[in-house]
Amino acid sequence: MNEFELIAKLTKSLPTNENVLVGAGDDCAILDFGGDKLFLFKTDAVVEGIHFTKETPPEKIGRKALARCLSDIAAMAGTPSAALVTIGLPVVPKRGEGGLKNFDVEFVAKIYDGMSDIAEKFGVATVGGETTTNPERIFISIALLGTVVREKQILRNGAKIGDAIFVTGELGGSIAEKHLEFEPLINEAKWLADNFKIHSMIDLSDGLAGDLRHILNASKAGAEILKTAVPISREAKLAAKKSSTTKPAFVAALTDGEDFELLFTIASKDAVKLLDAWKKKFPKLKLSCIGKIVSGEGITIRDKAGSHKFNANGYEHFAK
Amino acid sequence: MNEFELIAKLTKSLPTNENVLVGAGDDCAILDFGGDKLFLFKTDAVVEGIHFTKETPPEKIGRKALARCLSDIAAMAGTPSAALVTIGLPVVPKRGEGGLKNFDVEFVAKIYDGMSDIAEKFGVATVGGETTTNPERIFISIALLGTVVREKQILRNGAKIGDAIFVTGELGGSIAEKHLEFEPLINEAKWLADNFKIHSMIDLSDGLAGDLRHILNASKAGAEILKTAVPISREAKLAAKKSSTTKPAFVAALTDGEDFELLFTIASKDAVKLLDAWKKKFPKLKLSCIGKIVSGEGITIRDKAGSHKFNANGYEHFAK
Repeated sequence: MNEFELIAKLTKSLPTNENVLVGAGDDCAILDFGGDKLFLFKTDAVVEGIHFTKETPPEKIGRKALARCLSDIAAMAGTPSAALVTIGLPVVPKRGEGGLKNFDVEFVAKIYDGMSDIAEKFGVATVGGETTTNPERIFISIALLGTVVREKQILRNGAKIGDAIFVTGELGGSIAEKHLEFEPLINEAKWLADNFKIHSMIDLSDGLAGDLRHILNASKAGAEILKTAVPISREAKLAAKKSSTTKPAFVAALTDGEDFELLFTIASKDAVKLLDAWKKKFPKLKLSCIGKIVSGEGITIRDKAGSHKFNANGYEHFAK
Repeated sequence: MNEFELIAKLTKSLPTNENVLVGAGDDCAILDFGGDKLFLFKTDAVVEGIHFTKETPPEKIGRKALARCLSDIAAMAGTPSAALVTIGLPVVPKRGEGGLKNFDVEFVAKIYDGMSDIAEKFGVATVGGETTTNPERIFISIALLGTVVREKQILRNGAKIGDAIFVTGELGGSIAEKHLEFEPLINEAKWLADNFKIHSMIDLSDGLAGDLRHILNASKAGAEILKTAVPISREAKLAAKKSSTTKPAFVAALTDGEDFELLFTIASKDAVKLLDAWKKKFPKLKLSCIGKIVSGEGITIRDKAGSHKFNANGYEHFAK
């Protein structure tokens, strides 16, 4: 059972109520309490040894922990508002008297500094949290509450046959640096929602192929990707050159996790207008049309040799 | 540095914004997005080996994880609405292919069952979450969003000199069973807020002495507790009898953690009326007036021998 199968099992019959507009299974949950704003609700975790190492600068750990949630708010075209931070810290349990601290307070304070810097940049308040014990490693879970103007939210399930598929930035090789440095695309997503009719959107956390499949499954459609149109990062190309055992750069661009770019679909008639407007508004961030939504299911890659199905998934957190 | 000192350091300069009515330092944060409802926002975590053991029935683990957050919503007289669940599961990291699962899927599914049962009981929707890897032990963090009618919220900082101090239930010895079985007092707290002018309230997670001190520090006041008025649980009395090395039952009632009862203060003129109305409304749940708010600071215990300061704190998660 892999991560997605486990999540599917666990979320099969979750309790719901009248406030839930969108529950588990999209980038954020959407809650409706009346009023002109809807609420976006998201949690995400980073764990030492999995998402960062003992050598990662602490400010970057904190920054990444919050930035991941911000990226999910961006994927819904929302505005982030308030965060809660749970941090499990290595303490050797000791009977009676609490435990023996096995972490550096300054290191932990710097994690918070990194988190606070990016929180301030995006107007997010850190309104509390919980410190607890996780004896072997630092575990950080963040819950983020945001808002989106009613009718402006963008889900995964709205892709339509014929839509053009767009992706921001360049893909693959994020592990070299970008997974700690990426900029959540909050402002870019809001601009998209304000100026265009975006049919579906997701942020790239599991890899282009995996996340595109989330859109396709939710929208009951397939996708045709033009191989030469996929923007491949310099890091993915360098890694592919360095070693013959590494995956080819194109496969890295489709399957490497933690790009945190935006992947979205829009009616193809709006594609050129969008590209023009984007270039003026965000000249430093590449926007690429990489293919189109088609009937059927799954991802088809088109290159000089013809068309073939792409079956490898993006990064999965657990194997079978 | 103990838990409270660490939290104080980390939360010294958290970023805020115009939506924050109450930030870190009360039972929940309170957020104001306009409208007639305020939003309560809380996170809490339970960790294997700390808050439960490998032998704890999985349904009770899930129940406890959510019930702890529910108890904090109760402490503000709020209504819980939506939860997000982050769960770190033991997976042995493995290069390339994710990792080797080292947990029982049925066990994890039962954790969710226990959580769903109590969620449904209190009308809470589980709207998503995150599964990730925590190689050595299960780590569960829950974020809970609730609402409270504007002006009905009850904070820690409203205790006034002369207030009567009340506590629900019986205290101490929760580790025997109650920490897994307690009922969050959502309905009781709402009834209190609807029918009386409650000046301050908190739920007992760190122990009566520690949590009363949170009210006293926030309200800049002291408390005088009548020793014979403190309701001591049967479990605390039994534990004290069993072994001469255990702390006396009265000390257990003041310092044992995880009672999850409500501690609140109210003008003393309303005390008798409250006790009468409570007995009619909640005949099965004891309500005790244990003392009064006084000027000064700290907790004074009055018994036959006279008055003395109570200096021991409740349970602290880390020692120095």
